[in-house]
Amino acid sequence: MSTSSASLKLPQVASTADATLEAALRHKLDNKTKPIGALGKLESLALQIGLIQRSTTLCLEQPQVVVFAADHGIADEGVSAYPQAVTLQMVLNMMRGGAAVNVLARQHGFGMTVVDAGVASAIPDVPEPPADAPALLRRKIGFGTRNMARGQAMTGAQALSALGAGMDVVNHLPGNVIAFGEMGIGNTSSAALLLSRFCSVQLDDAVGRGTGLNDAQLDHKQRVLFDVSRKHREAKTPLAVLAAMGGFEIAMMAGAMIQAAASRRVILVDGFIAGAAALVARELRPAVTDYMVFTHRSAELGHRLMLIHLQGQPLLDLEMRLGEGSGALVAWPLLQSAMLIMNEMATFESAGVSQQSDSPAQPHPTAPPDELATMV
Amino acid sequence: MSTSSASLKLPQVASTADATLEAALRHKLDNKTKPIGALGKLESLALQIGLIQRSTTLCLEQPQVVVFAADHGIADEGVSAYPQAVTLQMVLNMMRGGAAVNVLARQHGFGMTVVDAGVASAIPDVPEPPADAPALLRRKIGFGTRNMARGQAMTGAQALSALGAGMDVVNHLPGNVIAFGEMGIGNTSSAALLLSRFCSVQLDDAVGRGTGLNDAQLDHKQRVLFDVSRKHREAKTPLAVLAAMGGFEIAMMAGAMIQAAASRRVILVDGFIAGAAALVARELRPAVTDYMVFTHRSAELGHRLMLIHLQGQPLLDLEMRLGEGSGALVAWPLLQSAMLIMNEMATFESAGVSQQSDSPAQPHPTAPPDELATMV
Repeated sequence: MSTSSASLKLPQVASTADATLEAALRHKLDNKTKPIGALGKLESLALQIGLIQRSTTLCLEQPQVVVFAADHGIADEGVSAYPQAVTLQMVLNMMRGGAAVNVLARQHGFGMTVVDAGVASAIPDVPEPPADAPALLRRKIGFGTRNMARGQAMTGAQALSALGAGMDVVNHLPGNVIAFGEMGIGNTSSAALLLSRFCSVQLDDAVGRGTGLNDAQLDHKQRVLFDVSRKHREAKTPLAVLAAMGGFEIAMMAGAMIQAAASRRVILVDGFIAGAAALVARELRPAVTDYMVFTHRSAELGHRLMLIHLQGQPLLDLEMRLGEGSGALVAWPLLQSAMLIMNEMATFESAGVSQQSDSPAQPHPTAPPDELATMV
Repeated sequence: MSTSSASLKLPQVASTADATLEAALRHKLDNKTKPIGALGKLESLALQIGLIQRSTTLCLEQPQVVVFAADHGIADEGVSAYPQAVTLQMVLNMMRGGAAVNVLARQHGFGMTVVDAGVASAIPDVPEPPADAPALLRRKIGFGTRNMARGQAMTGAQALSALGAGMDVVNHLPGNVIAFGEMGIGNTSSAALLLSRFCSVQLDDAVGRGTGLNDAQLDHKQRVLFDVSRKHREAKTPLAVLAAMGGFEIAMMAGAMIQAAASRRVILVDGFIAGAAALVARELRPAVTDYMVFTHRSAELGHRLMLIHLQGQPLLDLEMRLGEGSGALVAWPLLQSAMLIMNEMATFESAGVSQQSDSPAQPHPTAPPDELATMV
C-alpha cells in the first residue's frame, strides 16, 4: 500500500494538535461574555477551526460543495429501491439546479461542482442551464464499477486513478472549506462493506435501508452483501478493500479529503457514504480526521456506528438520509456561528460584565416591596 | 383564572390542524426529487410552517428576536453562579452589540429587541450605540421580583400586566417569525419550579446548574427551591403559579407567545427559560404549541423532561446553555432550508427522475468489463 500511495504522490497530512494554540483559543473563548462552555459544540467547533487555520481569528471563505457521482455494478443484484438510471437523472437534475443540494447551496452561498467519477453512461450537456448551475467535471474512471458480487469492483489502477483525480479536483477549487457529497444508486452497499471491513463491524449492523428498502428488500440486500464480503474476505489493505468493494465516487472523495487536509482546509463530511470515504482517507492518512467536521448523523442504520469508529461527534441529528452533501450544507451555518462568536463577541473586560465567582453570589440589595407595588 | 385572562383580553389561539392542507403539503414534499422522508425533520418543519401559514408555498419574512430581561428576588438566596448585577450588565452588552445574541442576530439578519421586563435597576442609555443596536423597550413591571422564598414573586396584577405587555410587544413587531430569548440571573430557578408544578416533575429532576453551579452550589439551590415549592404548594392555577414562583420575563414571554400564535406567526422557542414560558402559555391557550418550533435541547438538566412534556422534538442538541435566544437563532437556517425545499426543489415529473419501485430494481445493462478497462 505504501508503495502504491507513493506512486500517486499522496500528500502528507499533519496533525493539527498544538497545545499552545489550543490554550490560546480556549482562553479567548472563556473570556467571551457567557458562562464557560455555555455555547457547547459551537465552542468545540471554533477550537477545531482555529487549530486547522493556526489562528485565534477564524476565517471561512468561498465554501465549496462537491458532489461525486458514480454507478455501482452491485445495483444489478437489486440492492437499491431505485433503478440505476436515477444516478444520471439526478446528476442532470443537479445540473439544472433542481436537487436538494442546489437549493441548499444557493441558500448558503456555496460554489457547487458535480464530478462524474463514474456514472454508467455519458453525461449529456444540459440545454440552457441556469445561471447558477454547478460546474461539471468529467473524471469518469469507468462506466460504473463491476458487480462486486462477481469480482473486484475496480482494479487497483482504477482505485489509484480515482484517488488522484480527487486530489486534482481539490487543487482546482478556491476557498478554505469543502463539503463532500455524493450521488450513486447502490453506494450504501459499498459504504456498509467498507465500514464492516475497516472497523470490524458486523455486516448486520452496517447494512441499512438506503433510499428506502422494505423489510424483504433489506433482507435480500443483507444476504447479497454477506456473500460479497465473504467473496472478498482476503482484502485487508486500504487499497485492496477499496478495489474489491469500493466505488469510484468513494475513492475519489477519499483522495479529495486527503488533499483538502493537506492544504489545511475544513472538510465537511456529509453522511454514510462520505463517512465511508473518510474511513478510507483515515486508513491512508490518519491525521485527516483532524480536519473533518462530522456534520450530521444520518438515519441510515450503520452511520451511528461509523461515527463512533471515526470518533466523530455529529453536529446535527435531523433523521436525514439523502446524501448529495445535503446534511453538510444544512450544518454549515453552525461553522459560521462558531467563527463569528470567536471573532466578534465581547469579552468580560470589554463589556464590563462581572465574572463567575466560586462561592454563591452574595445577597444583593433589591428595591423594597413598596417600590415594587408602585410599578403596577 | 378564566376571569383574569378575560380581563386582559387574552386572544384566542386556533389549532393549526387541517387534514386537507396537511395532505397537500405531504403530497408536495413526496413529489420532490428525493426518497420519501429523506429530509427528515426538515420535512416535518416544512409541514408545520405550511399549517401555520395555511399555504403550500412557504414564506418567512422579517424574522425578529426579542430578549426579555428581568431580575429575580430569589437571587438573594445564592442560587446563581453570577451576581444579580450581571442582568443589567448583559443588557448593556446587548445594547452595545457585544453579546452572543447580537452576533447571531447579525449573522442571520434578525431584527432585535431587548425588553426591560423588570431589571433590578434603571437601564441607562448607552452612549454611541452601534448602528445595528437593538431596540430597547421599557416595560418594567418591577425592579426585579420579590424573593419567592419569603413570599409571592409578584402580585396577580403584576402577572397580568406582564402578560399584557408581552402581547403588546408582539403587536408592534413586523414579520412572521419571532425568536424568544431572555436574560435574568436566577431565572433557571423560576423555570424549574414552573416545570415541576405544571408537569408534576420531581424538583430534583428539574433543578440544574444554570450558568454553572458546582456540586455544593447545586445542592444549595435544590434545598432552597424545595422550600420555595413547599411554601407555595397551594398555587395550582396558571396565574397563581406564575405569580407565586414566576418571573417578569417569563410572564411577558408567555403573553408574547400567545399573541404571536394568535397572529399565526412562527414561534422559535429557545431553551429552558423560554420553555417555561411556553408551559405557561400552553396552560392558558393549549393550541399555542402548534405554532412553536422547539429549536434546541439545552444542557440544563430539566430541559429534556420539559421538552418531553411539551411534546417538542428539538431541532438541535448542541449542549448549549446560554439563553438570550442563542439556540433559537442557531436553528433558524433550518427553517429557511425547510421553506426553500418546499418552494424550490424540483419534482420527479419536472426533473424526469424515475420514482421508487416496490420491487427490487431490475438488473440494468452496464458496460462490459473490457470497456471499463479502457478507461484507465
